Amino acid sequence: MSEVVNKAGLAKETTGVLASLTTGQKNEALLIMAEALRNEAEQIIAANREDLERGRQAGTPESLLDRLALDVSRIEGIAEGLRQIAVLPDPVGDSLETIERPNGLTIEKVRVPLGVIGIIYEARPNVTVDAAGLCLKTGNAVVLRGGSSALSSNRKIVEVLHAALSGTAIPAAALQLIEDPNRSSVDEMLKLNGLLDVIIPRGGSSLIQNVVMNATVPVIETGAGICHTYLDASAKPEMAERISLNAKAQRPSVCNAMETLLVHREYAAQHLLSLAEAFREANVELRGCSGTVALVPWAQPATTEDFATEYNDYILNIRVVSGLDEALQHIAEFGTKHSECIVTEDSGQAARFLQEVDAAAVYHNASTRFTDGFEFGFGAEIGISTQKLHARGPMGLPALTSSKYKIYGSGQIRG
Amino acid sequence: MSEVVNKAGLAKETTGVLASLTTGQKNEALLIMAEALRNEAEQIIAANREDLERGRQAGTPESLLDRLALDVSRIEGIAEGLRQIAVLPDPVGDSLETIERPNGLTIEKVRVPLGVIGIIYEARPNVTVDAAGLCLKTGNAVVLRGGSSALSSNRKIVEVLHAALSGTAIPAAALQLIEDPNRSSVDEMLKLNGLLDVIIPRGGSSLIQNVVMNATVPVIETGAGICHTYLDASAKPEMAERISLNAKAQRPSVCNAMETLLVHREYAAQHLLSLAEAFREANVELRGCSGTVALVPWAQPATTEDFATEYNDYILNIRVVSGLDEALQHIAEFGTKHSECIVTEDSGQAARFLQEVDAAAVYHNASTRFTDGFEFGFGAEIGISTQKLHARGPMGLPALTSSKYKIYGSGQIRG
Repeated sequence: MSEVVNKAGLAKETTGVLASLTTGQKNEALLIMAEALRNEAEQIIAANREDLERGRQAGTPESLLDRLALDVSRIEGIAEGLRQIAVLPDPVGDSLETIERPNGLTIEKVRVPLGVIGIIYEARPNVTVDAAGLCLKTGNAVVLRGGSSALSSNRKIVEVLHAALSGTAIPAAALQLIEDPNRSSVDEMLKLNGLLDVIIPRGGSSLIQNVVMNATVPVIETGAGICHTYLDASAKPEMAERISLNAKAQRPSVCNAMETLLVHREYAAQHLLSLAEAFREANVELRGCSGTVALVPWAQPATTEDFATEYNDYILNIRVVSGLDEALQHIAEFGTKHSECIVTEDSGQAARFLQEVDAAAVYHNASTRFTDGFEFGFGAEIGISTQKLHARGPMGLPALTSSKYKIYGSGQIRG
Repeated sequence: MSEVVNKAGLAKETTGVLASLTTGQKNEALLIMAEALRNEAEQIIAANREDLERGRQAGTPESLLDRLALDVSRIEGIAEGLRQIAVLPDPVGDSLETIERPNGLTIEKVRVPLGVIGIIYEARPNVTVDAAGLCLKTGNAVVLRGGSSALSSNRKIVEVLHAALSGTAIPAAALQLIEDPNRSSVDEMLKLNGLLDVIIPRGGSSLIQNVVMNATVPVIETGAGICHTYLDASAKPEMAERISLNAKAQRPSVCNAMETLLVHREYAAQHLLSLAEAFREANVELRGCSGTVALVPWAQPATTEDFATEYNDYILNIRVVSGLDEALQHIAEFGTKHSECIVTEDSGQAARFLQEVDAAAVYHNASTRFTDGFEFGFGAEIGISTQKLHARGPMGLPALTSSKYKIYGSGQIRG
């Protein structure tokens, strides 16, 4: 039996116990896990050093090494994340609906855990803890497959968490780490129908596309964001500049950052040059349509491929459009159904934009950067769904649950 | 361009219009569709006769020909189904949640259509109309791929519906029928990410498994039901017999019918023989464990394969168990997470069963045959989901929707 089948099977065996735990039992376990991470920080940092060393020798870029690196303060932050999950309301057991039927049946729809959740992610040890915490809080078992370049860190973290769980009501086997560094272990997870109830990929678009295109287990697609901001003719210049600068440059590396600015031609004629200057000051490289290039001499011509690219960087496409219809068409063609914004003082234009754009989050006069579980007030986030089934947009704890109908009868049969 | 890509693309182009239709516009179109089916019943019956003729020549079993056959009364029933969908509440546009954030953002979660729904089904022309009606009512475009032996019927039905839609607010292109009878057209639909938002298979287990195991488009798995009824030691014999006979024999061909009866050994010692006699009178063939065969001389020995089979027929497995734990283990091993029932007078045993069994619908003292959108009061049903993502159990109109966050700001940016 392979490691993947073995560990997923062990995880599955715990689902009955997990589904019946009280919120108090789960919260207590999360706090003990947090404490253990703090207590064993030195061991974890030592294991992390091995990963970093291997990474340096392999010539891994500094930015990736930074995402991999752990120190006392980062471990404290990770432990604090678990404590925050512990204080969130537990969705499991919530009664969602009660139906009384004329034949006397009472049908109650209640929230239950999903079962076993597979998480496939990159070399980010913080995800190991965060995903484990979110899944266990919602009564799910979890099978983690992190990037192989974080294997030493992940192995030590899971060892620490297993030891911590041994004194709690959560079975240690509910948390499994796949250690096989070969791609084949990912491929195996993707086809593990019957043992995994869902797979959630967390990472860049190639990782996500591999999961979406090859999994037979149900997937919650997260991630890729080619987000637009449309500045309408009536947009207030100060607000338009503030929102579009924030959407692009406050943190360009994330999925809810803007990649393309669409500008009404009337707005462009009056304000695009000064806006472009503001982007230049923020070190944002500009690529534009011919209308843009005519107004902004330092903008490079944008290609169709540029409009289809998630830069995650200090690069912005600009396109001048004739109005809302052309903006909507552009977004329908190039958007990834993540986050889209209109800046306008015209409530009719805003209403049309919010109604007609097909995306998880549609904004009127606010930065797309707010698409985030914490900013939405969920207190946690397992990812941002860009698909339409099950969950769409930032996913808090309820996205990690399913439901079940409990039917109470007194001998009813169907006629 | 293939027929599948072409038609799915045409369907997708209508999604913007569909999402913005009023409930009144959609209901009016459904009523006009119903009227057209009645008016053109003769033409449809003539087309259906071609399918039946081809089927007879190909040696299709009578039971399948019966599912394929249309007459005036069946067409009237199908049209009545559309009228019933028209009077159901429209979930699209419902406000699901409103969040007011400290920074002044208002975040509203609203129901929206899924987009384009692919339906893959067998040679049942009634599904063509029913699926079209449910999808259009919820503002979705639909791409239908029915069994090729119903092609003439489906082609005529869709021709009639297209003509009817031409006088309504629903674009005729929102309803597409794939006419290519080759399996390759199904395979193509399964990989149509970007054009189809979800695929719902409706049919037998081999059709469903083909979709689940090969689709890269998100799937809502429906169908297969190996359902159990557990008679506890404290079950009232009269109720136990009524419920288990109904679950098995009222309509054995459907997914919520019982396949295996689990009987507490104390109950078995006293009542199994008379219960088995009742099943014999209902023409149900019995296959049992050694304990069953010892008590019921005419029962054949059941194999492990029998316990894993969805008979959909007048055949029942019986297993005598030592108590609830063994019943739960059996259901965990052989159940398909569809519908499971306990008959007991012991509320503690009932509570444990309803909590611990992992299935879409869990019953205390009522027949599993009630797992059905109409019996649950939903007024419609696109299928019964046996997966845990998105929808579980009978799926009414809300299962055909997604959600979207509309965020109303006044210039907010992220700090």
